[in-house]
Amino acid sequence: MLLENQAADQRDKLAAQYHAVRTQTLKICQNIAIEDYVVQPCAEVSPPKWHLGHTTWFFEELILVKFLKNYTRFNEQYKLLFNSYYKSAGKHWLQSKRGYLSRPCVADVIQYRKYVDEHMAICLQKVGENAELDFLFMLGLHHEQQHQELLYMDIKYIFGVNPLFSAYENSHREKARKITAKRQNFSEGIYKVGHTGNQFSFDNECPQHKTYIYPFQINVNTVTNEEYLAFIEDGGYEKPSYWLSQGWDWVNASNIHAPLYWQQENNAWYEYTLYGMQLLDPHAPVTHISYFEADAFAAWSGMRLPTEQEAEIFLQQSAMTKQSPTEVRLHPLQAENMAGEVWCWTSSHYSPYPRFQTFDGMVTEYNGKFMSGQFVLKGGCVVTPYGHYRHSYRNFYQPEQRWMFSGVRLAKDL
Amino acid sequence: MLLENQAADQRDKLAAQYHAVRTQTLKICQNIAIEDYVVQPCAEVSPPKWHLGHTTWFFEELILVKFLKNYTRFNEQYKLLFNSYYKSAGKHWLQSKRGYLSRPCVADVIQYRKYVDEHMAICLQKVGENAELDFLFMLGLHHEQQHQELLYMDIKYIFGVNPLFSAYENSHREKARKITAKRQNFSEGIYKVGHTGNQFSFDNECPQHKTYIYPFQINVNTVTNEEYLAFIEDGGYEKPSYWLSQGWDWVNASNIHAPLYWQQENNAWYEYTLYGMQLLDPHAPVTHISYFEADAFAAWSGMRLPTEQEAEIFLQQSAMTKQSPTEVRLHPLQAENMAGEVWCWTSSHYSPYPRFQTFDGMVTEYNGKFMSGQFVLKGGCVVTPYGHYRHSYRNFYQPEQRWMFSGVRLAKDL
Amino acid sequence: MLLENQAADQRDKLAAQYHAVRTQTLKICQNIAIEDYVVQPCAEVSPPKWHLGHTTWFFEELILVKFLKNYTRFNEQYKLLFNSYYKSAGKHWLQSKRGYLSRPCVADVIQYRKYVDEHMAICLQKVGENAELDFLFMLGLHHEQQHQELLYMDIKYIFGVNPLFSAYENSHREKARKITAKRQNFSEGIYKVGHTGNQFSFDNECPQHKTYIYPFQINVNTVTNEEYLAFIEDGGYEKPSYWLSQGWDWVNASNIHAPLYWQQENNAWYEYTLYGMQLLDPHAPVTHISYFEADAFAAWSGMRLPTEQEAEIFLQQSAMTKQSPTEVRLHPLQAENMAGEVWCWTSSHYSPYPRFQTFDGMVTEYNGKFMSGQFVLKGGCVVTPYGHYRHSYRNFYQPEQRWMFSGVRLAKDL
Amino acid sequence: MLLENQAADQRDKLAAQYHAVRTQTLKICQNIAIEDYVVQPCAEVSPPKWHLGHTTWFFEELILVKFLKNYTRFNEQYKLLFNSYYKSAGKHWLQSKRGYLSRPCVADVIQYRKYVDEHMAICLQKVGENAELDFLFMLGLHHEQQHQELLYMDIKYIFGVNPLFSAYENSHREKARKITAKRQNFSEGIYKVGHTGNQFSFDNECPQHKTYIYPFQINVNTVTNEEYLAFIEDGGYEKPSYWLSQGWDWVNASNIHAPLYWQQENNAWYEYTLYGMQLLDPHAPVTHISYFEADAFAAWSGMRLPTEQEAEIFLQQSAMTKQSPTEVRLHPLQAENMAGEVWCWTSSHYSPYPRFQTFDGMVTEYNGKFMSGQFVLKGGCVVTPYGHYRHSYRNFYQPEQRWMFSGVRLAKDL
Repeated sequence: MLLENQAADQRDKLAAQYHAVRTQTLKICQNIAIEDYVVQPCAEVSPPKWHLGHTTWFFEELILVKFLKNYTRFNEQYKLLFNSYYKSAGKHWLQSKRGYLSRPCVADVIQYRKYVDEHMAICLQKVGENAELDFLFMLGLHHEQQHQELLYMDIKYIFGVNPLFSAYENSHREKARKITAKRQNFSEGIYKVGHTGNQFSFDNECPQHKTYIYPFQINVNTVTNEEYLAFIEDGGYEKPSYWLSQGWDWVNASNIHAPLYWQQENNAWYEYTLYGMQLLDPHAPVTHISYFEADAFAAWSGMRLPTEQEAEIFLQQSAMTKQSPTEVRLHPLQAENMAGEVWCWTSSHYSPYPRFQTFDGMVTEYNGKFMSGQFVLKGGCVVTPYGHYRHSYRNFYQPEQRWMFSGVRLAKDL
Repeated sequence: MLLENQAADQRDKLAAQYHAVRTQTLKICQNIAIEDYVVQPCAEVSPPKWHLGHTTWFFEELILVKFLKNYTRFNEQYKLLFNSYYKSAGKHWLQSKRGYLSRPCVADVIQYRKYVDEHMAICLQKVGENAELDFLFMLGLHHEQQHQELLYMDIKYIFGVNPLFSAYENSHREKARKITAKRQNFSEGIYKVGHTGNQFSFDNECPQHKTYIYPFQINVNTVTNEEYLAFIEDGGYEKPSYWLSQGWDWVNASNIHAPLYWQQENNAWYEYTLYGMQLLDPHAPVTHISYFEADAFAAWSGMRLPTEQEAEIFLQQSAMTKQSPTEVRLHPLQAENMAGEVWCWTSSHYSPYPRFQTFDGMVTEYNGKFMSGQFVLKGGCVVTPYGHYRHSYRNFYQPEQRWMFSGVRLAKDL
Repeated sequence: MLLENQAADQRDKLAAQYHAVRTQTLKICQNIAIEDYVVQPCAEVSPPKWHLGHTTWFFEELILVKFLKNYTRFNEQYKLLFNSYYKSAGKHWLQSKRGYLSRPCVADVIQYRKYVDEHMAICLQKVGENAELDFLFMLGLHHEQQHQELLYMDIKYIFGVNPLFSAYENSHREKARKITAKRQNFSEGIYKVGHTGNQFSFDNECPQHKTYIYPFQINVNTVTNEEYLAFIEDGGYEKPSYWLSQGWDWVNASNIHAPLYWQQENNAWYEYTLYGMQLLDPHAPVTHISYFEADAFAAWSGMRLPTEQEAEIFLQQSAMTKQSPTEVRLHPLQAENMAGEVWCWTSSHYSPYPRFQTFDGMVTEYNGKFMSGQFVLKGGCVVTPYGHYRHSYRNFYQPEQRWMFSGVRLAKDL
Repeated sequence: MLLENQAADQRDKLAAQYHAVRTQTLKICQNIAIEDYVVQPCAEVSPPKWHLGHTTWFFEELILVKFLKNYTRFNEQYKLLFNSYYKSAGKHWLQSKRGYLSRPCVADVIQYRKYVDEHMAICLQKVGENAELDFLFMLGLHHEQQHQELLYMDIKYIFGVNPLFSAYENSHREKARKITAKRQNFSEGIYKVGHTGNQFSFDNECPQHKTYIYPFQINVNTVTNEEYLAFIEDGGYEKPSYWLSQGWDWVNASNIHAPLYWQQENNAWYEYTLYGMQLLDPHAPVTHISYFEADAFAAWSGMRLPTEQEAEIFLQQSAMTKQSPTEVRLHPLQAENMAGEVWCWTSSHYSPYPRFQTFDGMVTEYNGKFMSGQFVLKGGCVVTPYGHYRHSYRNFYQPEQRWMFSGVRLAKDL
């Protein structure tokens, strides 16, 4: 009887958690117009309505189809349209053509969400009875949180490449204060990195494992706009010696002269933010830079990027905490004892950890199949959902990508 | 006094005509959702809201800015965003990136239309006083009618590449009857082609001029789906001997096996129409084929495409008339004494007529600068606005384009 | 007996003609190194050894395989490797990859030529007995002459894109004299254009036919470097109003600022010629320009390009003759009563003449299948082989191509 | 006196070593024709004559220009033409356009080699006096040895994409014997990897450093053609579940169905080798496969690729030795106690070692700037020059590249 009550309590808690996450996704979109839900200005930026559909598809395809008896899909075509890249779930619409589709309409997708939410409510009654379902449920929530961050990134891109430069949020944006540089030293030895414990994590963070580290120093603060501007003004983008070979080719082929969203007018630098186009804030962290730019900046500064192991060890030992959910900020600041403002590029390619095992089933494709040609970023960013942050989190992007809230934390050998 | 009244009457007539054309544009869009206004599934298909804005920009930029004292643009950015390709009107947003822009919203564009319409009403008072204004006003209306046809084409493409295959119009679609083949002969001699008279025409239809014609025969009816299917079933798409060299490369590189919008399922052929996906109607004219396909079909059939001169001579002498405005049809039929069902490809590249002069001013760029690499189509199509049709009309497209209502009328030497 | 002797004489004459043409092809190559025979610096420039093989393949495949009993191909793989684009002759190696092939070696190709020449000698005994053979023999010779011109063009390109700028010929280059402008007027009426008579011509020049012409004036001289330079210095390449839409896109995408082979150093203009890099000769005809440049220049000058009909009428009535074979010049000059210095762009797209019939058999693919998107050039050029020139000759190239000896002759309406 | 003699002896030894390496480069080319020196069938395959020039440029630019007083370059243009990618050495000709250049001729490049060799002989007198010179001299020799391996790879590619499939070497090719599978286990702990000692190594192999290893097993033998064929026959190339996401895209976009150089005819598999086209040898190691294929094969086999650390530890502890210089083999075999047959792909991206420092000066660009997006291969291959092999050697290629003698050695966790 008691156990039954506990299980019921647990189910209520999960239902509440589900509700909170699902509601938050819609809340992010409440500021935007129907038109903003539809466009795809580059291959990796998805239409917001696609995110709403895809996260719903994830629950439908992974949980409802399998665990809810007699479940009928909301629309059989959505199986194709909202599958991102899961080959084991059948055909999927090409990523780069998501913006070709005006239909289903936003209202249809909202209906789809409601339909799936109602069925998930029934299905949640089964939680606690089936370990696979429990796991997939948690995965679905964390998956949706990843797409919440992507929604901010994608909406920003959609507004930021449009010459009208609409603001997503009209409220006042806090200015960054100048921070005294602080550094932290780490001595040689064996350290542990990777996720451990009972809490949820993605497969790529596991298993926790030992790694041999050489003495290094790392900056507590991340690089600021002012510091990055000095690199630009010193001709950083014109000198091949700072750049990786592919980076130099990219800078020239794509005609890159500054971080994404920066523009210079009448000798002043501006930056498009979710608050609109604003004068560049010198003490805010530089953000929206590629790996190539981060690495070139580090070379110019005489330091280097940390490895992902160094970055994780630093995070473990820091008192840093992710901002509480009451603060809603949409652009990174920098302050002492504050983590998760910008995802910091590391010098580590995204490769499997020793003894890495992918998730089972369809979600074996979740992380493992992307382990070529990408780099790891650590530490979360200002729009990472609260509760989604972990020190062991391994984010990864192509070295030329810039639309995430990426930044730099410098390190050096000791 | 009398003259003054006549002028006022004339102004009222023009205002009514302006109102009718502008209203019709919006009417075409009344069936579609906000989402449908925004997407651009390929470079030449523009978002419907862009058409609404661009046709308005045309009146604003050509007439209001010049002829209405103290006129202030609705939004200075629209000068850039809604300029299609007029270099003399300043910078323009890249055509292939129109679908990147979620803003301005549809409601903003509707506001823009109202604003310009109100100012045009004032400006129309001046009509009759200034020949340039008179001309530009008529040009603006014909320009908007061209975009009405484009709206049908673009909406069809937007729906037709989406696996949901939404219908634009749910009403019943009339089936084509089988028509007895008829042919018409023309004897050798000098003929006149090109526009003459006081009615409006585009610059590229002028001047009327003599041309020497050799005896030829031309079919009255256009090629039907049934006839085209015979070409497909005879391996027409697999035999290079029927194809132009560029056509053969295109067929193979783009993996083309049938007209645009055709698909085969369970041994039956279907065609997406504005009425939705339907079984292929055997007696309806084949449509949405490229020049390469039209030319290959003609080669297979042992005939040839007519030149644009031959096609125009045929149109002049036919009793064909464009359907009256009360009929609204959205897919071509074929019946005796009916013109303007499908634009017929001719074997003529789009080149200047003898003694051709472009329009003056900004609109010198209207037609003349596209005279390379395109082919002429004659005869109007089912969605060409009533009153916009002329025998002398020269439509032109790239030889691989297919999203217009293009078809084939065969000819041969006598 | 007499007839037999005549036939024998005729055969000797043809054998001599064959020998002369085939020898001339090798003579063009005697100045170049083995390495020069192999490279393909862009898709349309073929390795010289490919020309040597392809012209031989043409005789082998069209004549020997069909008319010489028990003929065995020199090498079965050459059927694939030296087929240019004849789909009816089986598979062919991709044009853009001819430069990937180091083998067969030049010596192998020379052997191939000898082998085919020996067998052709036998086959020539049959000439006079078979009309098809007679025709194909003449076609083979004219085909080879076309490739002689291409050899000059391709060798020039191979040397001209290499920073070592080797000279093909070290002898002295004659300088052009300034010529007094002359113009010729033509009145309205019906004219005949196209080939007639018993001499050889390509299918695309036929049949001779009537065309209605409006009064026009045409310049006798072609545009000079000095005149073209004035266009450049007046900002011709920076002003979109002179350019066709596709031309403007091409100029910008390809970063074009002057004719091919021109370069500016220390405020002086140089031009790479087959005699090496030389100071630009102001009175020599401008050459190596695209249709887009020719058309833009004409627009800037307030005149226009002639149609191909106008150009041919002009050539018919001129006293112009092609230089005699004793002069060997490798760069165009300009002098009175001299034709064939630069191929003059016309405003005519390359389309079929009225009642055009392609050659029969495999060579149906010779000319007809290229009738889309190209423009006609008239009048021959300095490296066109003597005896290959005809007023009715229709050369054709893509509007952006420049590696042929192309130029401009201006016209205007009267 | 004694020391002076020792120095002289040392100089003689170095001169002999220089002579041996430089001669060997030419020896590799003695089998090929002039035409084979010139072509570049894909961007990464350079014309053999370019290798001859570039390795010479390396000595000229790094040593002679700096250390030989009054040295005059053989040809100032070669500075540009034979610079591969050293931005600090000025402009360089674009890699993908090396095959556009017929000049300098092979004979010119041979002259260039002689000129530089003569001046190097003089310069070698200074060896022992200047540590930088000593280092650059050794680097130049190892650099040239790298290009010897590239010459074999590139010549193979040049012959292997040509339908004539010429043999580089006509001698008999030894067949591989079936080998009994052997495995080796390694236990958990700290291991050292990376180069140490006084012998030459590249910067990227340094410094030797500790790494924490988990228990693993590794196969002694590399995967054979027979084993790889089983993967193909099991539909390995058609099942996305074995493939990295980028790998799957590559397989489909490039239409890949087997290793490079394999082709199937009449149900038999053939492989192009430097000995010509041959029946696939079942027991020979599979070679010329991409990282994507190696990784997919490992996934199919239920094992995994080793990390580069694991591969190096294995090599250190093996008794494997590189074949002696008397054997000259041009295709990999597999036999016990034999190393260096195929470069084995590892799962490690090519990243800097802890505390990595690039070489100084111009050669800072030698290895470090390529540390993005590539994977490490270990163990040498059959055409790696004797004396150039080291266990610590880190070879690196893009994951889709296949023209090197790459293969697979499988590992698994214990």
